[in-house]
Amino acid sequence: MQIAIVLYDRFTALDAVGPYEMLARTPEAETVFVAEQTGPVRTDTGRLALVADRSLAEVSSPDVLVVPGGPGQSALMEHGPLLDWLREADATTTWTTSVCTGSLLLGVAGLLDGRRATSHWLAVDQLKRFGAEPVKERVVTDGKYVTAAGVSAGIDMGLTLLGRLAGDEYAQAIQLGHEYDPRPPYDAGSPDKAPAHLVDALRERSRFILT
Amino acid sequence: MQIAIVLYDRFTALDAVGPYEMLARTPEAETVFVAEQTGPVRTDTGRLALVADRSLAEVSSPDVLVVPGGPGQSALMEHGPLLDWLREADATTTWTTSVCTGSLLLGVAGLLDGRRATSHWLAVDQLKRFGAEPVKERVVTDGKYVTAAGVSAGIDMGLTLLGRLAGDEYAQAIQLGHEYDPRPPYDAGSPDKAPAHLVDALRERSRFILT
Repeated sequence: MQIAIVLYDRFTALDAVGPYEMLARTPEAETVFVAEQTGPVRTDTGRLALVADRSLAEVSSPDVLVVPGGPGQSALMEHGPLLDWLREADATTTWTTSVCTGSLLLGVAGLLDGRRATSHWLAVDQLKRFGAEPVKERVVTDGKYVTAAGVSAGIDMGLTLLGRLAGDEYAQAIQLGHEYDPRPPYDAGSPDKAPAHLVDALRERSRFILT
Repeated sequence: MQIAIVLYDRFTALDAVGPYEMLARTPEAETVFVAEQTGPVRTDTGRLALVADRSLAEVSSPDVLVVPGGPGQSALMEHGPLLDWLREADATTTWTTSVCTGSLLLGVAGLLDGRRATSHWLAVDQLKRFGAEPVKERVVTDGKYVTAAGVSAGIDMGLTLLGRLAGDEYAQAIQLGHEYDPRPPYDAGSPDKAPAHLVDALRERSRFILT
């Protein structure tokens, strides 16, 4: 089994590393980081690069596809080579997945038409543009398509998917090994819970980021 | 303000990326990934490399130090150059922090003597070897030393620290932006909650990993 995680300039690191950390020990599976060219790919802060060990051309038929989000995603919405590759890869996948605004890339590639899907809370309504039905849940599964909400939801998505790939018990062992028993120091992680003025401020700022 | 995150061969990716994702947007702060040599540093699975943009020699007086854990940590417990650097860096930090077994590196460097500290649940008792008092909590703060439990606890540590660095409101905005409203699909993230046979199995296996 091959699990391919796609990197592109200005992706969000945790979108990719969250699922990686849950999935990379899947029995009898190989996880590969893939980008248009091999080598370092910078994240959205500019302060970190992850290495893509394979080029898109070298990975043509993954079994599991993971597409992270990040501000760099908006520059790719009309980028033929990546969108063509997503469609080609999806043709052979058992699972096609995304984290955060990665679902917009799946959407523009035409892969979510008629599907229930989610995205970052600031972007989820945009899924309608691609014929998808926006669902405001942490992890949404529709057939072989598994989409996660913003950034950190990729951990929950990865663990959910691991349960399907390797069984509930194996997934629980990975959860325990990673001590994934979260205790956020604040309860401000969703627009329903955060102070309203913070929600408004992020909504205002996002107009310039999400287009 | 300079935030330095240390990388070394066979570190655990999420240990480093969790705090990075919470801290990299700290106002008026620069986040740098640092290792003995600049360039790609492989994680514990061998399937991913993060790039260290600076060498230890180039970063001598960070304000915030973050030391991730991972199986590669055990090979460094007598590694003079890194331990010397940790002591030297700690001399100027405002905050010295760790995730998972990173606290064992702080311990062997002599930085946790007489301090309350935590680590991965499989390793926390080993802190006694370094004169520290093991505390089984998710994030433990004692003076300027902030230690986190296993792997994913680095996210909670990073967000906690961000609150101290930039204020509660800023930290809540980052939590909201990262949609950090966790919903693990299982409740097996700590030895108190996971099925006992899984706890025993990991404990057995860890004898060969943690020495």
